[in-house]
Amino acid sequence: MAIVVQKFGGSSVADPAKIKNVAKAVTREYKNGNQVVVVVSAMGKTTDYLVKLANEIALNPDTRELDMLLSSGEQVSISLLAMAIQESGCPAISMLASQIGIITESIHSKARIVDIKTDKIKKHLDANKIVVAAGFQGITPEGEITTLGRGGSDTSAVALAAALKAERCDIYTDVNAIYTADPRMVPYASRLDKVSYVEMLELARVGAKVLHPRSVETAKQFNVHLRLRSSFNLDDPGTLVVGDDDMEIYRPVTGVAADLKQVRIAILKVPDRPGIAAKVFMKLSENNISVDMIIQSLEEEQFNNIAFTVHESDLNNAISVLEKVRQEINASEIVVDNNIAKISIVGAGMVDRPGIAAGMFDALADAGINIKLISTSEVKISCLVAKEKAELALKSIHKKFELDAKEPHIDEIAN
Amino acid sequence: MAIVVQKFGGSSVADPAKIKNVAKAVTREYKNGNQVVVVVSAMGKTTDYLVKLANEIALNPDTRELDMLLSSGEQVSISLLAMAIQESGCPAISMLASQIGIITESIHSKARIVDIKTDKIKKHLDANKIVVAAGFQGITPEGEITTLGRGGSDTSAVALAAALKAERCDIYTDVNAIYTADPRMVPYASRLDKVSYVEMLELARVGAKVLHPRSVETAKQFNVHLRLRSSFNLDDPGTLVVGDDDMEIYRPVTGVAADLKQVRIAILKVPDRPGIAAKVFMKLSENNISVDMIIQSLEEEQFNNIAFTVHESDLNNAISVLEKVRQEINASEIVVDNNIAKISIVGAGMVDRPGIAAGMFDALADAGINIKLISTSEVKISCLVAKEKAELALKSIHKKFELDAKEPHIDEIAN
Repeated sequence: MAIVVQKFGGSSVADPAKIKNVAKAVTREYKNGNQVVVVVSAMGKTTDYLVKLANEIALNPDTRELDMLLSSGEQVSISLLAMAIQESGCPAISMLASQIGIITESIHSKARIVDIKTDKIKKHLDANKIVVAAGFQGITPEGEITTLGRGGSDTSAVALAAALKAERCDIYTDVNAIYTADPRMVPYASRLDKVSYVEMLELARVGAKVLHPRSVETAKQFNVHLRLRSSFNLDDPGTLVVGDDDMEIYRPVTGVAADLKQVRIAILKVPDRPGIAAKVFMKLSENNISVDMIIQSLEEEQFNNIAFTVHESDLNNAISVLEKVRQEINASEIVVDNNIAKISIVGAGMVDRPGIAAGMFDALADAGINIKLISTSEVKISCLVAKEKAELALKSIHKKFELDAKEPHIDEIAN
Repeated sequence: MAIVVQKFGGSSVADPAKIKNVAKAVTREYKNGNQVVVVVSAMGKTTDYLVKLANEIALNPDTRELDMLLSSGEQVSISLLAMAIQESGCPAISMLASQIGIITESIHSKARIVDIKTDKIKKHLDANKIVVAAGFQGITPEGEITTLGRGGSDTSAVALAAALKAERCDIYTDVNAIYTADPRMVPYASRLDKVSYVEMLELARVGAKVLHPRSVETAKQFNVHLRLRSSFNLDDPGTLVVGDDDMEIYRPVTGVAADLKQVRIAILKVPDRPGIAAKVFMKLSENNISVDMIIQSLEEEQFNNIAFTVHESDLNNAISVLEKVRQEINASEIVVDNNIAKISIVGAGMVDRPGIAAGMFDALADAGINIKLISTSEVKISCLVAKEKAELALKSIHKKFELDAKEPHIDEIAN
């Protein structure tokens, strides 16, 4: 029998009525003759609420205790979903990461999965039970509870699908498919029926919020058949994320996305000596801070400016790390720019076509938008622009690359 | 160094401000040079809220999933309390029952503790950490999460104190001490500085809500020095619960209590054959339903009426069990009486003094209260009366046995 892994995010399990709706999607798959593992996040705004409680007690709560606190959220959603599935007449059992054996490294708040035991899950599947697994959480070999950080539940689902050699992994969300741009910002966004891992990865990295890059990376690594679907429209096939070999042609530009959650940090007047940049980024990495766009510019003789972007939630942590480094390396100042949006275009076919970057800059110029920073790779080009220009930038680029659909997108979600 | 176990109930950790208050009581004990283990329940009304969510999904949720759900409540309170203790400058670590190794039998929703591992707790205590342990929950040898049922957190605390050979176990609550009657119902209730296990056990069994009988039984069995204290008044020594040997004299009547949560079930016209009563109570016991007062009356030749009381939360379950039994044994009818209060007097010295029962009946007669059912033991006498007569009954009996204090009780709690 084929194993199917399904994943439902917090908004899909926000209240008992929605949990019953999820139970329908789950039992439908089960009644089609599949063995089903469902991964769920915490209900709705639970995580935000728990973080708020913690912050009323401590400004910088211990990450070990924070993981203990936050992982309670999935414990609630998995047991309620198991009850809802049982209520609809199918056998189900909820399992915590500690009960499954989702082993992570011993880092709190953003641990990576190192191993997944499959024996207990398989025992329950073979007893015809639907397994409801807690996403986002893991356990260290010493029995400490960890959480996986941003995009954790997507990653849990894909990693479980890989470990169980599942036929596919369906990520349910509140959109019907992946689009060439966010339809809430670009009404003429076109629907994509198929994207490659590499394209999806880049789309995710540049801010398309539908799938977390970590989960796409894991899917690519283990060749997990990923599908993005709507939990409100079970008949829609959604978007398939497939290996490069499964793509007939590469689009020069697959999609356009804006990331509004980045901040730019610049370290000014860094002495131009070997190993200085390495020191800066090593320190950030040791503190588990991910750095995105990096630009080093030679300001005047013997001095560089180093600028880069980090996620806004890492800003305070980054500043305190960098202040120490700044003193050590004798740089003059650290400057933060909050008013930025990272606009990116992604396309695996980009590498073969000249003029794509020029086309993007042209579109921004047409719209009168100033570019603050540029970064390119083989499959994407990103520009930082002022935050309030993000929507205009997306629309202009989307039109420029002829991605516009014939009809404007109509929002099917009644949130 | 002496180990002290402290226990705080849900109302003591109902919000961040109260959790910080608990942290004060904990660090005070720690700074006195003790090794401290704190047991906490879920915050305020969390358990009620979770049960409500479950009932929106299923009328009779699976008890295994209900235990998974409810045990998330203590996970929240232990991590927040650990953060609050850390914030006040003392090292602390939270531990789930599964991490400690609080092993229970494989029964859901009212499991009994069979073993407690102490190695991990002791390792943390020896590293000078305050251990914040989740009450109410346990784990089976197979790794399934269980809950201990009513009074579970008190039981967790006492069992931990026994396993760790703690110097004492302080149960913090929202009253200053144990009284001869509930001061909210009997304003002239007198304070007790010392009670014996047996007296406490009976007081708890008959409805004095301050300590759960299971926890007192465990304390008696392992000779744990139990103290009941107020979390709002840390300087009040509270009431000490001690072994029989530590009591100089036995009071004929230690206290009076009303239990308003019982319902009376009567099975009418039960054929008078051997083994019938055994069958009834065996079935109830197999379904984990505790039966309190039992009266069998010979109605007419060859037929008995069997009446007994159960906790109101067990009523639905009891009825469905009994309906099957009724058909098997060919009894005529099952009758439920919800309008009852169980009024009890308790006193270890009762056995040596004649006339105590008569005094109680007399007090009820003086107040014009009809008695529906009587049950006696060596240390207590209980009478069922109509629910609306409970307060009057308590006051009349309290006065009769000269338990009234000189001054009326003034409520110190500003809830």
